[in-house]
Amino acid sequence: MPETAPDRPDVSEIRDVWPLLTPEERLESFSLLRREDAEELYLGLSPLSQATILLGRPAGERKIWMRLLAPDDAADVLQEVPPENRAELLGLLGESARREVVALLAYAEDEAGGLMSPRFARARPEMTVEEAIRYVRRQARNRLETIYYVYVLDARQRLLGVVSFRELLTATADRNVEDVMRRDVATVPEDMDQETVARIIARHDILAVPVVDPEGRMKGIVTVDDVVDVVEAEATEDMHKLGGMEALETPYLQTRLASMLKARAGWLAVLFLGELLTASAMGRYEDLIAHAVVLAVFVPLIISSGGNAGSQASTLVIRAMALGQVKLRDWHRIARRELLAGLSLGCILAVVGAIRVVAWEGIFGTYGDGYLRIAATVALSLVGVVLWGTITGAMLPFLLRTLRFDPASASAPFVATLVDVFGLVIYFNAAALFLRGTLV
Amino acid sequence: MPETAPDRPDVSEIRDVWPLLTPEERLESFSLLRREDAEELYLGLSPLSQATILLGRPAGERKIWMRLLAPDDAADVLQEVPPENRAELLGLLGESARREVVALLAYAEDEAGGLMSPRFARARPEMTVEEAIRYVRRQARNRLETIYYVYVLDARQRLLGVVSFRELLTATADRNVEDVMRRDVATVPEDMDQETVARIIARHDILAVPVVDPEGRMKGIVTVDDVVDVVEAEATEDMHKLGGMEALETPYLQTRLASMLKARAGWLAVLFLGELLTASAMGRYEDLIAHAVVLAVFVPLIISSGGNAGSQASTLVIRAMALGQVKLRDWHRIARRELLAGLSLGCILAVVGAIRVVAWEGIFGTYGDGYLRIAATVALSLVGVVLWGTITGAMLPFLLRTLRFDPASASAPFVATLVDVFGLVIYFNAAALFLRGTLV
Repeated sequence: MPETAPDRPDVSEIRDVWPLLTPEERLESFSLLRREDAEELYLGLSPLSQATILLGRPAGERKIWMRLLAPDDAADVLQEVPPENRAELLGLLGESARREVVALLAYAEDEAGGLMSPRFARARPEMTVEEAIRYVRRQARNRLETIYYVYVLDARQRLLGVVSFRELLTATADRNVEDVMRRDVATVPEDMDQETVARIIARHDILAVPVVDPEGRMKGIVTVDDVVDVVEAEATEDMHKLGGMEALETPYLQTRLASMLKARAGWLAVLFLGELLTASAMGRYEDLIAHAVVLAVFVPLIISSGGNAGSQASTLVIRAMALGQVKLRDWHRIARRELLAGLSLGCILAVVGAIRVVAWEGIFGTYGDGYLRIAATVALSLVGVVLWGTITGAMLPFLLRTLRFDPASASAPFVATLVDVFGLVIYFNAAALFLRGTLV
Repeated sequence: MPETAPDRPDVSEIRDVWPLLTPEERLESFSLLRREDAEELYLGLSPLSQATILLGRPAGERKIWMRLLAPDDAADVLQEVPPENRAELLGLLGESARREVVALLAYAEDEAGGLMSPRFARARPEMTVEEAIRYVRRQARNRLETIYYVYVLDARQRLLGVVSFRELLTATADRNVEDVMRRDVATVPEDMDQETVARIIARHDILAVPVVDPEGRMKGIVTVDDVVDVVEAEATEDMHKLGGMEALETPYLQTRLASMLKARAGWLAVLFLGELLTASAMGRYEDLIAHAVVLAVFVPLIISSGGNAGSQASTLVIRAMALGQVKLRDWHRIARRELLAGLSLGCILAVVGAIRVVAWEGIFGTYGDGYLRIAATVALSLVGVVLWGTITGAMLPFLLRTLRFDPASASAPFVATLVDVFGLVIYFNAAALFLRGTLV
């Protein structure tokens, strides 16, 4: 049902291609829109995009765009603009909005306080239902975040309960609000991490959660639409870390090459330094390899199997931790499960590996008389390496969290690097065991 | 503000530990709750947990629990119970609810139609604002999914526009609904994939999106609270795949060991078969290794660097694709960027690697006279392998998507396996080039 004039670009089309546009293209297509469409697009953008537009518009127009934003969104935008522009933009707001925004700026961006909006619907406990409805209707004129929930506060702004607007509408008109409200309200403290806030909203299946200070005074609400973005952003951050790099803060195509190299080169170099230990480990077994070059042939196979098994285990544990399904104190339950899993998986690969050696000997005569010993070496090492990889992958996230690092840093490449060195030790010791007196 | 009797368990405590409980513990703690608390907990649970409780309660009580569910939730629960229980549970519903649920069951679980609720607030275009408010208040008595948006339908149920309930409350009472509604409504078709629906809701920052059939008739709404779960579940699925395994459908601790092994062993075995190619590749260079055992020493270092670089690139591209930031047609922009990134990262590692060889020679005299040639071999191979890994990692997701596979299957272990074989070829060819006539 679009009503766009034929010579104007279509707002929904611009919204679709928005992530793919350069900053210049964004500003240009934005300026081509009808005012009404431009406002709609602007209000749906990320804080970073909103900041780009604010700073890209003529100075005389900035006031209008700044004042369109709800206080929590304005605070987010101010955190995205260069520090030297902040005071100017803040000055464009009205007196009371400015006070709200300054209060919000005091909170960290990734905490409940930094995510909340102070514009919620409220009522007093002694009001009648009909009075409360009229009161909320009056409040609705000042752009509330949502009228879905009406929060019941005492004279000192302490949260007593909540009633949904729908409940008010269907309740008997002359009952008191305190008789229809629910007293058992899930709340979050101002400094709660946004990931936890998101989980609480999702678990309670509510559209907004109230933020209260230590005295029980209500400061604002965090709404579910903010939380979708948080859930998505946190998942992206974790995935980037799982891929063995620092998380990018901007979409891939908007990230400058230099920033992207910075996010990747650091971890890649650290992992490389770790892998250099494999060169030292291999060096220790140079004589063994010189006597039985065939041993070198299986090195990539053995160590990569350990790394792959470790990647599976660490991914499972990290995601379960992020979703709150696994807590720190569960480590021994995980350890027991992964011990079993690692042993089983190791045995499966050992059988496949042994069959491969025996088959190649049968078909091509690749390994000569010692082929059964080689098969045994490969099979035993695979059990050991896969077991070791699985346990390392499963326990490393617990270790990182205990040491107050992000468990998501236990990436596939990180686990693989840890597993490689010890995997080589396992392999060459198995070789020394089985090949003693024959090839060596 | 909890009001729980002292000898009853606390509902919020049970909700917190819920994911960690066994099915038996869940049923037991559920049966200890006060009826009111039990209902609240029940309504906030996942469909799978709701099904467990439904089937775990005495047969005489099931009707009550079944009828508590909104139609879209009831349909989700029925998809979780064994087929032989479905007809019985469906029979417990009232006539009209049953018809709604049967209609919803016709949709796939992961499409807009399977996610939507048919219980939305509606109004007619010719109503006055005051009439519409009264009409919505009357509808609110039949458990609507949300009264936040009021959808304006014509006599044939076609969607004409939408007006928020708040807008109705603040509009002049005697205007017509069609004069205050917005006509430019984002809608989704019934068979749209749930991930795309989630993205549309998130991008438009709306609390619900209407689902319409090809004739423009409105069938239901998908609300943002369903979408939080979808976003989280889709991210989990992608992460598990990125970790080199099939996605688990249940939380880690609730997954039976056998199902978990099945999800992991398949991919691990496939990757192992791929890695067996490295044994063949290494076999081709056995003579070279026999003449210069030192070459074997750097094999793990070289191939793992290629795998790590590839893991970074594939993770970035897969996540950007999942978020809709990168489309299939962007492949050449990504290829160009990653070519530059791979070259830069390769050069950084090449410098570190060369320094390591020269330093060890200086300190320990590890590599003898040929150390400069070895340093050159390692450095050149690193540039080649990192570049190859980066390009493979970045392009594999595009290839998979073109072939209609899930790009998230381009996991770190998968990319590493692909890179390893070719990495060995690069390395030993560089060695043959630099060491010709000396060690060899």
